[in-house]
Amino acid sequence: MSRKLTYFEIPGFGETIRYLLHYGGLKFEDFRYQRKDWPIKEIKDTLPYGQFPIYEENGQTINQSMAIARYVASQVGLLPSDPWEQAKLDAAVLNLYEFYGKLMTTQRSDLEEEKKKALVEETIAFYYPRFERDLKAGNGHFGGKLSWADFVLAGGTVGINIFFGSKLEKDFPAITALVTEIQNLKGVKEYIATQSYAENL
Amino acid sequence: MSRKLTYFEIPGFGETIRYLLHYGGLKFEDFRYQRKDWPIKEIKDTLPYGQFPIYEENGQTINQSMAIARYVASQVGLLPSDPWEQAKLDAAVLNLYEFYGKLMTTQRSDLEEEKKKALVEETIAFYYPRFERDLKAGNGHFGGKLSWADFVLAGGTVGINIFFGSKLEKDFPAITALVTEIQNLKGVKEYIATQSYAENL
Repeated sequence: MSRKLTYFEIPGFGETIRYLLHYGGLKFEDFRYQRKDWPIKEIKDTLPYGQFPIYEENGQTINQSMAIARYVASQVGLLPSDPWEQAKLDAAVLNLYEFYGKLMTTQRSDLEEEKKKALVEETIAFYYPRFERDLKAGNGHFGGKLSWADFVLAGGTVGINIFFGSKLEKDFPAITALVTEIQNLKGVKEYIATQSYAENL
Repeated sequence: MSRKLTYFEIPGFGETIRYLLHYGGLKFEDFRYQRKDWPIKEIKDTLPYGQFPIYEENGQTINQSMAIARYVASQVGLLPSDPWEQAKLDAAVLNLYEFYGKLMTTQRSDLEEEKKKALVEETIAFYYPRFERDLKAGNGHFGGKLSWADFVLAGGTVGINIFFGSKLEKDFPAITALVTEIQNLKGVKEYIATQSYAENL
């Protein structure tokens, strides 16, 4: 089986997928473009919706980071089989994804720095206490045990921290514990040790 | 089994879920708030992320429209069992959801009407030809046969048409055919006939 993930040389929306693949010990080509080189028109025009990440398996391609992450999770034992349990995790992931999307929107806008900063803080202040609450309700994991939703939180938090030079989780003990747990999982830990952007954490 | 969907008296992000439930012949309480009454602080504060739709089954609750839609699809035979086939549909749904999100963002912004209109047109011009392309690649359905992703397209298109007074799909034969097909499915057709907002179509 051949696998290839194409994204940028940043954590962003790719890091969760990389964590999942390394956790499962699945071999894959981790192809990365440099942000400074992007967009490359000849490449961008070939992408189904103009965006990375793109995941290929045996010559077939899918886009959308959360679709890719869910698929990889299904291959490495991080997706429960019960449909209702899956739905609770899908909801958790979409809540996280909505948060990341809103954070990114603040950066793309033409707002003044002051206003931008206020919006970032407001967004974090809305979502993070809710993630903390949901984790506590599941005794430390979104679904009551380790799942792909936990990886989405960890991969996203790490990416945001690098981007903003922050430590988002510091006032949230359940989130802090979960990020630490995932970064120390076999496969993930060894992967992180090879990443130079991890130095910024 | 008791089921309840809570949303607003609009199609919006609830209509796809209603279509799926009616298609499957699943009984549910279709509870609707009036937009003009919203927000009702005492209610909003009880919602996990401050937003509808909310779906309840046997006393348990999930949020996020696409998580709810996927779950209902799993109960009514509109989700394939193969993980890769599921992933292709998840990607299709997230592409659609990204489009709806971007459209809504243009309406929430403080932009002038002219600029807003240009952004709406730009967004539609980017996404709709791609949806058409993907449908053609699947011989009229996103996954090669009827699935929940097709419902997400139909429910969303109908909602946008009512909101903008448009007929988005008119230049796209595969999208037009699919929306028509879904609106004529047993269960969905009878449901639509009871809806007064369908008069605006």
